[in-house]
Amino acid sequence: MKKANQLRKIEIIRDYTQYAAGSVLIKWGNTWVLCTASVEEKVPPFLRDTGRGWVTAEYSMLPSCTPQRKDRDIKKLKMDARSTEIQRLIGRALRASIDMAKLGERQITVDCDVLQADGGTRCASITGGMVAIELAVQRLLKNKVISENPIVHRVAAVSVGVCDGVPTLDLDYVHDSSAEVDLNVIMTDDGKFVELQGCAEHKPFGDEHLMAMISLAKKGLKQIFKLTR
Amino acid sequence: MKKANQLRKIEIIRDYTQYAAGSVLIKWGNTWVLCTASVEEKVPPFLRDTGRGWVTAEYSMLPSCTPQRKDRDIKKLKMDARSTEIQRLIGRALRASIDMAKLGERQITVDCDVLQADGGTRCASITGGMVAIELAVQRLLKNKVISENPIVHRVAAVSVGVCDGVPTLDLDYVHDSSAEVDLNVIMTDDGKFVELQGCAEHKPFGDEHLMAMISLAKKGLKQIFKLTR
Amino acid sequence: MKKANQLRKIEIIRDYTQYAAGSVLIKWGNTWVLCTASVEEKVPPFLRDTGRGWVTAEYSMLPSCTPQRKDRDIKKLKMDARSTEIQRLIGRALRASIDMAKLGERQITVDCDVLQADGGTRCASITGGMVAIELAVQRLLKNKVISENPIVHRVAAVSVGVCDGVPTLDLDYVHDSSAEVDLNVIMTDDGKFVELQGCAEHKPFGDEHLMAMISLAKKGLKQIFKLTR
Amino acid sequence: MKKANQLRKIEIIRDYTQYAAGSVLIKWGNTWVLCTASVEEKVPPFLRDTGRGWVTAEYSMLPSCTPQRKDRDIKKLKMDARSTEIQRLIGRALRASIDMAKLGERQITVDCDVLQADGGTRCASITGGMVAIELAVQRLLKNKVISENPIVHRVAAVSVGVCDGVPTLDLDYVHDSSAEVDLNVIMTDDGKFVELQGCAEHKPFGDEHLMAMISLAKKGLKQIFKLTR
Amino acid sequence: MKKANQLRKIEIIRDYTQYAAGSVLIKWGNTWVLCTASVEEKVPPFLRDTGRGWVTAEYSMLPSCTPQRKDRDIKKLKMDARSTEIQRLIGRALRASIDMAKLGERQITVDCDVLQADGGTRCASITGGMVAIELAVQRLLKNKVISENPIVHRVAAVSVGVCDGVPTLDLDYVHDSSAEVDLNVIMTDDGKFVELQGCAEHKPFGDEHLMAMISLAKKGLKQIFKLTR
Amino acid sequence: MKKANQLRKIEIIRDYTQYAAGSVLIKWGNTWVLCTASVEEKVPPFLRDTGRGWVTAEYSMLPSCTPQRKDRDIKKLKMDARSTEIQRLIGRALRASIDMAKLGERQITVDCDVLQADGGTRCASITGGMVAIELAVQRLLKNKVISENPIVHRVAAVSVGVCDGVPTLDLDYVHDSSAEVDLNVIMTDDGKFVELQGCAEHKPFGDEHLMAMISLAKKGLKQIFKLTR
Repeated sequence: MKKANQLRKIEIIRDYTQYAAGSVLIKWGNTWVLCTASVEEKVPPFLRDTGRGWVTAEYSMLPSCTPQRKDRDIKKLKMDARSTEIQRLIGRALRASIDMAKLGERQITVDCDVLQADGGTRCASITGGMVAIELAVQRLLKNKVISENPIVHRVAAVSVGVCDGVPTLDLDYVHDSSAEVDLNVIMTDDGKFVELQGCAEHKPFGDEHLMAMISLAKKGLKQIFKLTR
Repeated sequence: MKKANQLRKIEIIRDYTQYAAGSVLIKWGNTWVLCTASVEEKVPPFLRDTGRGWVTAEYSMLPSCTPQRKDRDIKKLKMDARSTEIQRLIGRALRASIDMAKLGERQITVDCDVLQADGGTRCASITGGMVAIELAVQRLLKNKVISENPIVHRVAAVSVGVCDGVPTLDLDYVHDSSAEVDLNVIMTDDGKFVELQGCAEHKPFGDEHLMAMISLAKKGLKQIFKLTR
Repeated sequence: MKKANQLRKIEIIRDYTQYAAGSVLIKWGNTWVLCTASVEEKVPPFLRDTGRGWVTAEYSMLPSCTPQRKDRDIKKLKMDARSTEIQRLIGRALRASIDMAKLGERQITVDCDVLQADGGTRCASITGGMVAIELAVQRLLKNKVISENPIVHRVAAVSVGVCDGVPTLDLDYVHDSSAEVDLNVIMTDDGKFVELQGCAEHKPFGDEHLMAMISLAKKGLKQIFKLTR
Repeated sequence: MKKANQLRKIEIIRDYTQYAAGSVLIKWGNTWVLCTASVEEKVPPFLRDTGRGWVTAEYSMLPSCTPQRKDRDIKKLKMDARSTEIQRLIGRALRASIDMAKLGERQITVDCDVLQADGGTRCASITGGMVAIELAVQRLLKNKVISENPIVHRVAAVSVGVCDGVPTLDLDYVHDSSAEVDLNVIMTDDGKFVELQGCAEHKPFGDEHLMAMISLAKKGLKQIFKLTR
Repeated sequence: MKKANQLRKIEIIRDYTQYAAGSVLIKWGNTWVLCTASVEEKVPPFLRDTGRGWVTAEYSMLPSCTPQRKDRDIKKLKMDARSTEIQRLIGRALRASIDMAKLGERQITVDCDVLQADGGTRCASITGGMVAIELAVQRLLKNKVISENPIVHRVAAVSVGVCDGVPTLDLDYVHDSSAEVDLNVIMTDDGKFVELQGCAEHKPFGDEHLMAMISLAKKGLKQIFKLTR
Repeated sequence: MKKANQLRKIEIIRDYTQYAAGSVLIKWGNTWVLCTASVEEKVPPFLRDTGRGWVTAEYSMLPSCTPQRKDRDIKKLKMDARSTEIQRLIGRALRASIDMAKLGERQITVDCDVLQADGGTRCASITGGMVAIELAVQRLLKNKVISENPIVHRVAAVSVGVCDGVPTLDLDYVHDSSAEVDLNVIMTDDGKFVELQGCAEHKPFGDEHLMAMISLAKKGLKQIFKLTR
């Protein structure tokens, strides 16, 4: 069993499938997410004729990715609310990595499909999605669709929490469910914050815990950036 | 015009409408949100026969609340994604204020309908929603539906950001749109964090800005808790 | 308590919110409806390139506007059938007030959001919506978007019914639920009919009751037109 | 061509299809509606354990019933708003014919499917739907499901209007589109009003036109009740 | 009662309704389907500017077409899955009859609305739909919208099955429900296969039964093509 | 390149993911489908209290499984029509393999999620789905949830077609798109037919081609059953 200040084992399989511009299977402990980056020569209406591009993300769990089978969204005719929240977070995080003027008027859609879920799927999605974008960008550069690399910094994400009073890095499902606090930290590879999203539904926390968690997250992210380079 | 370390003018009209158990119109600058708390003697399936209650929130913008009219969700048959994210945040924040065993097997639904939007609607909704819950709880106590006050601490929220490099309290729409960083801080009245949600889509930020923003938020929340008492 | 031939107290607050072209809060007894008129420079497909404008209405009840909380339409993915019927009535009534050629190729959308419901919400919506249109038209004239006033006559509405055999003006919720007959009368300020919609689900009625109800409605509408002028 | 005070030719084919309890094809000029009455041993939740029954109606136009093909509702995932309004009218009208205590705790659903539309489909639906209910009730009596006839009076409907200033009975599509006023009159076979629904979107009307239209409608309905007996 | 190698009685009423370009009521035993062919001067996006046309089909059961009333699709907001499968089959079958270049850039939509269902509705729809297309094509030729007949061969369909070990032609509902195998055979009038769709959910079958069923189907289709000529 | 009478390379990875009762990744050339079998202790309403079980299938393509990204169903709020048709086929085919009385009152849901699509996804889904069911059944037997193996025979599927006049086994996407005929053959391991679904949208076919295709399919299925044993 891993220690409170350790990451789970992370494996990143590049070019997993072949049709998307970028395709990555990230295996983060028992959490497996297929992250693909598809490029389309169109942008949302508010960006038309601006010369600027867009990055968006979609997140979905396969029905059998959890021990208890989950119905597909289409059965209920409703996008799952948790998935909506998560894919908005992934999109914001990944957009922060790109210079939209250099990308030009095209859209990268990052699809994060969870094959197996054991906690930390949003962090795995952001981390794997960044690698998928890098693969797609390399292809765009190689095919001379764009002339300059639009990636301004790479981003990655990790969760931290407080379990039984102990600040803990990289929560799996069992830890996540019982944690008093759950904080997702998304940073750039030069150590700046892109997004913080932390929730203490069960027990509000003070400054010391915030500081301890941020410190743990920074440590974990350093290791993760080594893996994704 | 207000200074970077000041709050906008906040007015809280209690018992605004008469049919909900708790009803509050919060006017936070030009942001007006009608927050009502309705009590129903039923809980979601996962809580049945547990003796525990639930608090949930719904957030919606009236079509004419912004300068550009917005179509209703029902016209598109889709819950707005931003509203989904916001109402999940409001729900988590308000749940943190309640001891569910003391509430007993009933549900409080807090409806936050935005009559006019000028930035900070999610913070106004949480702050106003807390007051609506308090009014509803008073009614439950008075009618002897419950015997003990289930409110363990009161919560409130404020947004802080970095505008042109300056940490700024309580962003209105113009500030929010141009801010480099936007952080929503939700705390209890005894100074603990309930949720942090901050995003730097435009410019990642460092530790000093994080510290400065949190400090401003704490200061603002102290004033807000005076108003809601 | 009001007499059978009296109106409830009606208060009309103009310019209630600030972003819509016209905004009115109408408080008709305990029925409160926020009526806003928004102007958009587009028309439905069947009117494109005709030089003619359009007026449409949307009607919705806030979840907490009645003693028993009502789910939002989006939760059921269906526009409420009663709301559909009502907003079609409001739209037809308000369109009758406008010369569409003078309005020009633009659309006025009147949103009627019920903050509190105690019977007569459709009549309050039509009456308040007319005032919101007038405010919007004044703004269009002042901004020289249009050069001639397109309002050909003003409309207003009132409900009448038969309660325990007695023709009764302006039914509140308790009366409406128990009335044998319920007739909504929409007229112009020069005393012509725009729409009649009456239903005797519980007890069919004869000519005398029809005449008595119409006479009462005319009397009530005269008073209402004084208020809305 | 028919005169202004005449009805179109109306043909009522009973027992048209064989699976519904009551089935009627009504051919009213070129307007053809298949009206079926199905009986189910269940009632809406608000009537459970009351011993009382319910009558409801559904109205739908087949895609090819008009010269211009109309998309099916399911394609747009939305119940057509005009159909919603019409089926609520049909339901109210038909409910007025039944003593719900005598019907007992069961529901009659009247489906009105328009095979061909040339104006007056809602009146044809109510008139044909009443006959379908009568057939269904006869079957219930014959099978001894109920012991007493729950039909308290029979209802029928006809449209009247004002065309070029002339009060006109039974408007077909061409007349309906150009009429200044369009009034649907639903009455019982003993000459009482069940519902009036009239609209003067194009030209408000005075008392004399109202009286003239009602008088024409009464005359037409007398003839119709002869046909449906 | 019909023998295992006989067809039910089939009646084809041409020009049943008047607004669609082609309209056919096919009564195949107790299965009645209204098949209409509507022509629109537009094609799906993938065919724009190709000079080629398209044929598509929609299939729907009226609520009262079966002994047990069926809810409309719009009530569940979902296209019925069985109807989806059937209308795709009808569309493929009918497309096989048309030379899309001769049809030109226009679409024929064949609506198959089942008024009464007693087994074999998909075969009745294909067979009746073909006749409706022929009527529509005659009208297009007569109106000189097209100059050459685009029908390359006529198609028809029949079901065959194995009931209690006996290969059987033209299954009605009772037979269909109990058949071990159910095979729909769609052929051209010159004896070629267009589609085979057979299922042995209850008892897998061997080559001999396949051959016997195909032979029966060919015999039946010869008779059907005589009727549709 | 493979010959017309050869299969593509097929690889079956058992126990690919860990939470479903049975999980198989089938790689059939460049077509990859994740097939999982989940067991739930409930059955559809029509089977309650019958002691019989049910098998159902869901089929979905991941957005990035094809060279051109495909929108998710939930974005359009509609189940894809082709997917609906395919999952009904998969369900029927797999149900044919099971003795529902031996399965007992529980449901196996087979989810077929296409990670990469290069033709033949429905055949890969049936073939892989059968293996997933076998794994799930082994687990049920091992855990003594059931006492007897409910699998009566194993099923598998392969596509055959006619390409440029040549009967061809196992069509990939390029062949499938250009084939004159496309026939899916589903058989049991003892050589009986479970379902035939063949379509000649482009060129109707005669008996010889039917026989040649069936013969090829039988040969291919023999090889496939060796792989799945």
